Amino acid sequence: MSQSFDIAVVGATGTVGETLVQVLEERNFPVGNLHLLASIESAGHSVPFRGKNVRVREVDAFDFSKVRLAFFAAGPAISRSYAEKAVAAGCSVVDLSGAFPAGQAANIVPEINAALLSAGGAGVHLVASPSAAATAVALVLAPLRAMLDLHSVSVTACLAVSALGREGVSELARQTTELLNVRPLETRFFDRQMAFNVLAQVGTPDESGHLPLERRLVDELRELLAQPSLKVSATCIQVPVFFGDSFTVALRTTGPVDLAAVNAALEAAPGLELVDAGDYPTPVGDAVGQDVVYVGRVRGGTDDPEQLNLWLTSDNVRKGAALNAVQVGELLIKGYV
Amino acid sequence: MSQSFDIAVVGATGTVGETLVQVLEERNFPVGNLHLLASIESAGHSVPFRGKNVRVREVDAFDFSKVRLAFFAAGPAISRSYAEKAVAAGCSVVDLSGAFPAGQAANIVPEINAALLSAGGAGVHLVASPSAAATAVALVLAPLRAMLDLHSVSVTACLAVSALGREGVSELARQTTELLNVRPLETRFFDRQMAFNVLAQVGTPDESGHLPLERRLVDELRELLAQPSLKVSATCIQVPVFFGDSFTVALRTTGPVDLAAVNAALEAAPGLELVDAGDYPTPVGDAVGQDVVYVGRVRGGTDDPEQLNLWLTSDNVRKGAALNAVQVGELLIKGYV
Repeated sequence: MSQSFDIAVVGATGTVGETLVQVLEERNFPVGNLHLLASIESAGHSVPFRGKNVRVREVDAFDFSKVRLAFFAAGPAISRSYAEKAVAAGCSVVDLSGAFPAGQAANIVPEINAALLSAGGAGVHLVASPSAAATAVALVLAPLRAMLDLHSVSVTACLAVSALGREGVSELARQTTELLNVRPLETRFFDRQMAFNVLAQVGTPDESGHLPLERRLVDELRELLAQPSLKVSATCIQVPVFFGDSFTVALRTTGPVDLAAVNAALEAAPGLELVDAGDYPTPVGDAVGQDVVYVGRVRGGTDDPEQLNLWLTSDNVRKGAALNAVQVGELLIKGYV
Repeated sequence: MSQSFDIAVVGATGTVGETLVQVLEERNFPVGNLHLLASIESAGHSVPFRGKNVRVREVDAFDFSKVRLAFFAAGPAISRSYAEKAVAAGCSVVDLSGAFPAGQAANIVPEINAALLSAGGAGVHLVASPSAAATAVALVLAPLRAMLDLHSVSVTACLAVSALGREGVSELARQTTELLNVRPLETRFFDRQMAFNVLAQVGTPDESGHLPLERRLVDELRELLAQPSLKVSATCIQVPVFFGDSFTVALRTTGPVDLAAVNAALEAAPGLELVDAGDYPTPVGDAVGQDVVYVGRVRGGTDDPEQLNLWLTSDNVRKGAALNAVQVGELLIKGYV
C-alpha cells in the first residue's frame, strides 16, 4: 500500500484554495485525511473532493499536529498568524501569500529550483510558492540564463481580475452588464470603472511609488533566477480579463542575442509551451485551465542585437498559484517532509 | 474679414475622419468650403459640420486644386494614390496614414517640433501626423530629453479597439454581449476572442517578428525626439477597451534620474496633464474626449537610480490622430501654406 499524507488547505473557499483542492484530486496527490480551513466568516461552507463535500472548518480551532503538510492560500494576515504555529507543530507549510521574506521561506518553482528543497534535507519545511507573475516570468527566463548575460529586464504584467478573488470576477461581470445595458455605473470592489478600461495601480503604492505586487515580482524574480542584483523594472496593470495573466517582457543583454538558440532553449524547457512565430498565445484562447506557461512573439530588438522581446500568458490561478503549490507539495512528500 | 481656407478631408466617414471634422468645428478652424471625400463605398453618406450635413463625395473624382489644405485619414493605400497628386495640384497635405517615409513627409507634433515647419518656409507641404502611440509617448519624453541622457526605452502600448475603426468597436461590443448571454462566440473582425482577452499581435509581423505598428512607433519616436539611434523596444497589444490607449514606458538613462526635476518638467510641459502620485489616470476615466496626454505613476527604478517608469493614457482618436492633425493644419495656415 502506498503512503498517504494528511493535508490541510487554509483558505479553501477562495478562488485559489478551491482550485488547489481540485488540483490535488486531478494529480492523484496521496491525500489521507483532507482538512479544509478558513477564517470564521467562511467556515461552514463545503468544497467537493473525490466525490464528497468536505466541510470547511475554522482555522483558529485547528490542531496542525494532525497533518504533515498544509497549504496556506488565505492571504498574508492568516499566514502570519498560523503558518509558524503549524511548523512548530511539525507540519510542513507551502505558503502562497507572500507573507514571509526569502530568508524565512524560500520561493520554489519546481522546474527552476527544486534543488533548494533537497539541499534543505528531510524535516519540517516552511516554503513559499511565488506570485503568479514571478512564476510565469521566471519559468521563461530561467532556461535563458545560461546563454544570455542579462543586463536588465522590463516587465509589464497585465493581470486578470481573478487575481483579486471572486469579488474581482463578479465586479467585472456586473460592471460590464450595466454598461452594455446603458445603466449608470456603480463601482464597488474596484474604486473606478474596470469594464472596458485599464487600471494602472492595484493596491497602495509605497513612498517610492511602487506597488506591493511590483516589489514582490522584482524580489521573487531575482530570488528564483538566483540573480540578486538583476535590474528589473515592473509595472502591474489590471485589465478587463477574468482569468489568465499576460506579460510583455523586454530584456537587455550584454552581448548579442542568438535567436535560434533562444527558441531552442524555450522549446526544450519544462513547464513552457512555445508558440510558433506568426501565431501567438492569448489568456482566454490558450492559458486558461492549462498547466504550462505559453510564450510567443520571440523577437530581437529593432536594430539592436542586445535586446530580446517576449510575450507570455499563464493561468494565474493554476500554474500561477494552486498548481505550483501542489507541485511543491509533491516534492516535499518525496522524502523531505 | 479674417481669411478662410477651402479644406478637404479624405476618409471623412471613418472614426478619425469624423472626429477631425468635429475638431475643425470645435477649434473654429477658418474653413471656407469643406469638401468631404471617401472611397466609392462610403461616398453618398453625410457628416454634420456647423449645423449642416455635408455630403461625402468620391475622392477619385475630386480636383485638389480647389483646396489649399487636405487631411488624409483614410489609410495608406488612399494616401499613396492621392496625396502626391494633391500636392502637385498646389494643396498642402497632412497625412495621418503613415504612408510616407520621414524623408518625404516629416512627422509633426506641434508641441515638440513645430519648428520643422517654419524651417520649411511658405509653400505647399506634405507633412505627417504620427501614430497615436508615437504622439503620446513622444509628448511625454520630449520634455525630459534635456535632463535625461536616454539610453533605451521600452514601451508596452495597450491599444483600444477604436484604433481599428468602427468595426473594432462594434465587434468588441457584439462579442461581449454574446459572452454575457452565454451564446456561442462568433469571431468576425478579430481572428479570435477579443472580449475579456488580450491580443498580442495586431496586423501581420515582418520576418523579424515586429508588427508594422511597432516599427512605426519606433521610427516615429526616434524622428520626433530627433534621436535616430535611440534604442527603443515596443510591443503593441490589443486590450478590450473601446477608446483610449494606455502605455507603460520604462526608460534607462546613463546617469541618475532626478525625480523632482522629472516631475517639474512634466508639470510644465505643453499638451500633458501630470496626475499626482498616489492617484493615476485611466483611459475611460481621464483620457477619452480630452486634448491632453495624461501621465502618472512617475517613479524611479527598484534599487536602480538610472531607471524611470511612467504610465500614460491618451485619446487615440483625438490627440492621437484627429486633434494633432488639425493642430498641424493650424500651423500650416499661419503662413506656411
